[in-house]
Amino acid sequence: MSEVGRLERQIRFLLEADRLKTVMRRTRLIEPEGEESRFENSAEHSWHIALMAMVLAEHSNEAVDSWRVVRMLLVHDLVEIDAGDTPAFGEQLDKQEREEAAAARIFGLLPEDQREEFYELWREFEARETAEARFANAVDRLLPPFQNLANLGGSWRDFQVSRERADARLSPIGEGAERLWEVVRGVLDEGERRGLLRG
Amino acid sequence: MSEVGRLERQIRFLLEADRLKTVMRRTRLIEPEGEESRFENSAEHSWHIALMAMVLAEHSNEAVDSWRVVRMLLVHDLVEIDAGDTPAFGEQLDKQEREEAAAARIFGLLPEDQREEFYELWREFEARETAEARFANAVDRLLPPFQNLANLGGSWRDFQVSRERADARLSPIGEGAERLWEVVRGVLDEGERRGLLRG
Repeated sequence: MSEVGRLERQIRFLLEADRLKTVMRRTRLIEPEGEESRFENSAEHSWHIALMAMVLAEHSNEAVDSWRVVRMLLVHDLVEIDAGDTPAFGEQLDKQEREEAAAARIFGLLPEDQREEFYELWREFEARETAEARFANAVDRLLPPFQNLANLGGSWRDFQVSRERADARLSPIGEGAERLWEVVRGVLDEGERRGLLRG
Repeated sequence: MSEVGRLERQIRFLLEADRLKTVMRRTRLIEPEGEESRFENSAEHSWHIALMAMVLAEHSNEAVDSWRVVRMLLVHDLVEIDAGDTPAFGEQLDKQEREEAAAARIFGLLPEDQREEFYELWREFEARETAEARFANAVDRLLPPFQNLANLGGSWRDFQVSRERADARLSPIGEGAERLWEVVRGVLDEGERRGLLRG
């Protein structure tokens, strides 16, 4: 591929990525606290979790390559441009097929070496088999409990979530970072106390 | 500082960072093209430029440590939580004082070692004296011309920007990545041809 063709493909991919800003999640911004704020989009969420990984890496159960963790976090939600956000507490059916097709199309915009690199990062994140992927998944699940607590229950209330179900969804945090899972358990205790999670 | 105190400070900082999602820029999303889409916020912009740095690092004039570039890009807009976004073509007065005060408060939420690290990344970005900072600044300026072209002129029109002024604002792209500056000059040519930039 010529240098120009390569750069053109990279730019086409990066302009396509702009659309992640229009993919809405089921979680809401923290502010203003105590009333419902707007829903969060997947692009700003991706920034936030990358920043979280930078700050919290020392709490990973295992030593991790933070740069690889951050690359995974920056890339892993791009499939939602085609596949949409799959709510944590909603229907998960055919998520994998939709996301595989999305990865093929979206990463396929890139030059071949980068397509492979991005595919690999995404697959590693989803498989949760490396220390980096376990920590990245922990960080990705860390914020919603705080957001729900600040929004009168947020997605817990919207999906009628029980404490048991929240524990099941969030316990992978402990596989990546036991200390962070302790903090989140405290947030869930508070959510239960306030009646925002079904007991 | 106890381990718990340290983690509490980190989480307080990360929850405060959520507010960057409410800082609005003067540029608009690319889609839907040909009509005006919504304004972009600084958090989703920060994600986008970090992704851009990952994909485009090979085009930097000088070899760069991409991890440092991405950390700079993830962190450098946080001062806008207090100081607001300073539009590229608007009033720049007292920007520096406002941002210095913001950096002191916001990075000051972190444990001392991380406060120093974040301060350092922000200052390095602003000073543009290292290869990493020059490339990070290039990437930070790359997207708005594409966004303006897709939005009937966007911030060029809102601020009555001339080609000369756009060149002055964007030429630092060439200091970081000559090849990317060539691409942007092509976008500016197109903007002029369509009458979206004053000649």
